[in-house]
Amino acid sequence: MADASAQGIVTAAILVIGDEILSGRTKDKNIGHIADYLTAIGIDLREVRVVPDVEAEIVAALNALRGRYDHVFTTGGIGPTHDDITADAVAKAFGVSIDVDPRAVAMLLERIPKPDLNEARLRMARIPRGATLIANSVSKAPGFTIGNVHVMAGVPSIMHAMLDALGPTLPAGRKMHSHSILAGLKEGDIATPFGEVQSRFPDVGMGSYPGFQEGVGYTTTLVLRSRDEARLAEAARAVEVMLADVRTGLGG
Amino acid sequence: MADASAQGIVTAAILVIGDEILSGRTKDKNIGHIADYLTAIGIDLREVRVVPDVEAEIVAALNALRGRYDHVFTTGGIGPTHDDITADAVAKAFGVSIDVDPRAVAMLLERIPKPDLNEARLRMARIPRGATLIANSVSKAPGFTIGNVHVMAGVPSIMHAMLDALGPTLPAGRKMHSHSILAGLKEGDIATPFGEVQSRFPDVGMGSYPGFQEGVGYTTTLVLRSRDEARLAEAARAVEVMLADVRTGLGG
Repeated sequence: MADASAQGIVTAAILVIGDEILSGRTKDKNIGHIADYLTAIGIDLREVRVVPDVEAEIVAALNALRGRYDHVFTTGGIGPTHDDITADAVAKAFGVSIDVDPRAVAMLLERIPKPDLNEARLRMARIPRGATLIANSVSKAPGFTIGNVHVMAGVPSIMHAMLDALGPTLPAGRKMHSHSILAGLKEGDIATPFGEVQSRFPDVGMGSYPGFQEGVGYTTTLVLRSRDEARLAEAARAVEVMLADVRTGLGG
Repeated sequence: MADASAQGIVTAAILVIGDEILSGRTKDKNIGHIADYLTAIGIDLREVRVVPDVEAEIVAALNALRGRYDHVFTTGGIGPTHDDITADAVAKAFGVSIDVDPRAVAMLLERIPKPDLNEARLRMARIPRGATLIANSVSKAPGFTIGNVHVMAGVPSIMHAMLDALGPTLPAGRKMHSHSILAGLKEGDIATPFGEVQSRFPDVGMGSYPGFQEGVGYTTTLVLRSRDEARLAEAARAVEVMLADVRTGLGG
């Protein structure tokens, strides 16, 4: 971590909590949204895990991920029903107590009339000791941050609102820039010369994503990624030259 | 594992391999498809991980997952370009050699003219020693199975074809049945009595998924899951009675 942050690199993982994702009933839309968000603010998403609503599984995954990455973002399991066990699992992972938090109750009361604030709804105000709250502009029940773990809702619209509230508080890393080149060729025809360009630019990440579209033909796209914009431009030029060579029959 | 399979339970994990998912450039569609497929054939998906195109990360995740679950399904990283390193990482995880496999070459030649079968395309025929091949009816380059690990393409249409080829060879487990009940109430109004029903049916998994739709109102859905259909029906009846009580003001 020390090395990485010395280079301005901030890393993250996502932990998706929910039986419904694993059964296929719900199709996750949060991973892609958080990935885009983190890339935009210069944080490198390095790993994602999806685990069921089982406390031991959540605790084990949290402890593995929070020790390894600068930030961990969780989604799911913070509602009022018995299957919502994320907050308790997080408290257990950190070895802290958890109780109804007056700050969270105040937020719930902005939306829920006091007589309706029953025991179940108060579950949504259970916050591990030492956590700071993440505002929820949609339905008020807050998320929270403890240590380097950010606990958010699973409902996409609420998760988006929490991420928007949380984002500005995160220390941004040195941003990863990317450059996409539509090759318009078959992957197998450019793979060898593309690998040669990669070996000349070991500091620039290069990936190839095959594609084919009826009426268009091959839509293989080469994606270059680097924190150094000048170096990225240099690599992009080298890839363009390589592609021109392949197209004119000189390379490949 | 012995215990689990004695009860007819077959477990699985998915390992998604690809920088493009972590950067947000590509939105994963494979997890949901595989989850649905496994649920339909009676295999319990227990965990998902997404890791980057880094050999050490792939090897570590594979070894963690293959020791823990009956099956591991990987997607991504088996194309012809330098960033496709899944086959080599799998060979490393299993401690076996890897080389161009004549069976895989024969499959490639069904689609690729021999003069076009260059070094890069031959990479797609690199198969770890001892693996069996998974047919690819879309673009011919095969996936493979080694031990309990099934290696598939990342392009959804190709992954679907591979899963269709692989599925019938998998030992099906005792199927998990599910029953969904549209509660039409706020989650916080049913959470306590719903938890009470859950405590009477500890062998039936019960989850609550909140929802709200303009013009419809609350669309909270309760999902019950069990391998025992009679028990599932009994639990569903208990939930319906609970909901009737809440709606008529007797419960909650």
